[in-house]
Amino acid sequence: MKIELSQPFFKERITIMGIGLIGGSLARALKRSNSVGKIIAYDRDEAALQRAYELGVADEIYTDPVEATKDADIIILATPITAMGKIMKEITPHLKESAVVSDVGSTKGSVLASIEAELGYLPERFVPAHPIAGTEKHGVENSFDSLFDNRRTLVIPHLENSHDAVRTIHDMWKAAGSMTEEMGVKHHDQVLAATSHIPHLLAYATVDTLANLDDRAEIFRFAAGGFRDFTRISASDPDLWADICLQNRESILEVLVAYQKKIDALRHALEDEDRELLRKVFARAKHARDNFYKEP
Amino acid sequence: MKIELSQPFFKERITIMGIGLIGGSLARALKRSNSVGKIIAYDRDEAALQRAYELGVADEIYTDPVEATKDADIIILATPITAMGKIMKEITPHLKESAVVSDVGSTKGSVLASIEAELGYLPERFVPAHPIAGTEKHGVENSFDSLFDNRRTLVIPHLENSHDAVRTIHDMWKAAGSMTEEMGVKHHDQVLAATSHIPHLLAYATVDTLANLDDRAEIFRFAAGGFRDFTRISASDPDLWADICLQNRESILEVLVAYQKKIDALRHALEDEDRELLRKVFARAKHARDNFYKEP
Repeated sequence: MKIELSQPFFKERITIMGIGLIGGSLARALKRSNSVGKIIAYDRDEAALQRAYELGVADEIYTDPVEATKDADIIILATPITAMGKIMKEITPHLKESAVVSDVGSTKGSVLASIEAELGYLPERFVPAHPIAGTEKHGVENSFDSLFDNRRTLVIPHLENSHDAVRTIHDMWKAAGSMTEEMGVKHHDQVLAATSHIPHLLAYATVDTLANLDDRAEIFRFAAGGFRDFTRISASDPDLWADICLQNRESILEVLVAYQKKIDALRHALEDEDRELLRKVFARAKHARDNFYKEP
Repeated sequence: MKIELSQPFFKERITIMGIGLIGGSLARALKRSNSVGKIIAYDRDEAALQRAYELGVADEIYTDPVEATKDADIIILATPITAMGKIMKEITPHLKESAVVSDVGSTKGSVLASIEAELGYLPERFVPAHPIAGTEKHGVENSFDSLFDNRRTLVIPHLENSHDAVRTIHDMWKAAGSMTEEMGVKHHDQVLAATSHIPHLLAYATVDTLANLDDRAEIFRFAAGGFRDFTRISASDPDLWADICLQNRESILEVLVAYQKKIDALRHALEDEDRELLRKVFARAKHARDNFYKEP
């Protein structure tokens, strides 16, 4: 895998706050490209820290956020998004002056708002980011070093950011195998509502609807590969996704209303036996998807 | 792959009516297990027949349904479901007395109704069946001999069926690598509405909704693997699925109403910031899916 960097990227100490699937995969990816001296891991969960250490994902482990971050060159918040504001308040006074902080949260407006609420300002060396990658699994034991290869990481600079801090986060993600692009906060949250948050909501809704039917055992038994793919994301962490949905509720609600209208139109087409409308919607959807994906 | 049969299955001439993904894959699977002397293919589309012949999927090709079936031991209807009644009317007077006819349609009530409407009765040697397998691709060029391996084929006998004919269809699908089970017509149509027809409808609705948003280009560009899996079935053939949805509209509408209520409840939970309700629905769905699938 070819990594294009403006210059070789290397930092002595990178701290991952929250060592799960994303944090663990980032640690592995940085180690793979020799971009880091030591990975430091913080987590509330001691067992997770222990696994990270045993797996060689982390070189030092801490349950104290200040201890974990005070000597770090880069700090990546990979905790639940609802915890990020508080952590920033706790660690900010003790960071090295040159330290750059970033996050991997799936929503951006709410993370920035919570940090600003806790600190009273947006730090110039806090650069929001979001790697567009993941699986329905969770935990450091499911992390792997190629998770970000050829995937996009969105960097979402805010008005107060120092250019140098933004550059560092771009370089780190490229060193982890990712392509990077910049995007505005509001736009990010709308695009992610449409492509990730709503599909998760719908997949959960589908499976829960079917699981309440009388013949649910047979329903799952006779499900084919299409159903398995369609519902895969409903195996994702419910707490994580309840948080994400709430934190991005405004953007989600906008698209959800449009989606409900579409379902209603299809239902009426079924009731009226309007084959042409069904075919038209299906064909437009197929066209859109075929255009944007070329399956391997 | 181990195939368990009551006795070795072999038929001299098996005719596939409609040589697309499913028909072509069945032909290949039967040839793989040396279960057939010759595969005869009928299609309205001469180019598809030519490809089937060139690919070695069919040994004889016909655009005349009577010519294709008059000497056949087994005839499999793999045409669009809306054509099956008419084809049965055309070929039935010319079939060998011992011939067994079956189909691969995704709906069963409507297929039986159309055959009974055309013939005035349900033939004792017509045995409805439905292999629960497929991909979002279509056409004989995408067919492959292992499509049915370890997948279920539902055999849906009707009251007039001869035991011998039902047995033949079980044996043929086992020879093609499939497991077989029997199910009633109404039950089949309900289970398939829930596991296949509704997911297709929802995937089409999702992609069409997103494709109408202003920033659709970016929406697809930043979609991750979860979205790709969730929407894969929206690349399926629009005409085929418009037919299936209409032919099974009653069962689909029953489940669709329940699904709309669930979406509405989730929307209200978002509006009211009811985290507990979101988490409960998500967790129940994850539990149901985890229980029924163990991912490889």
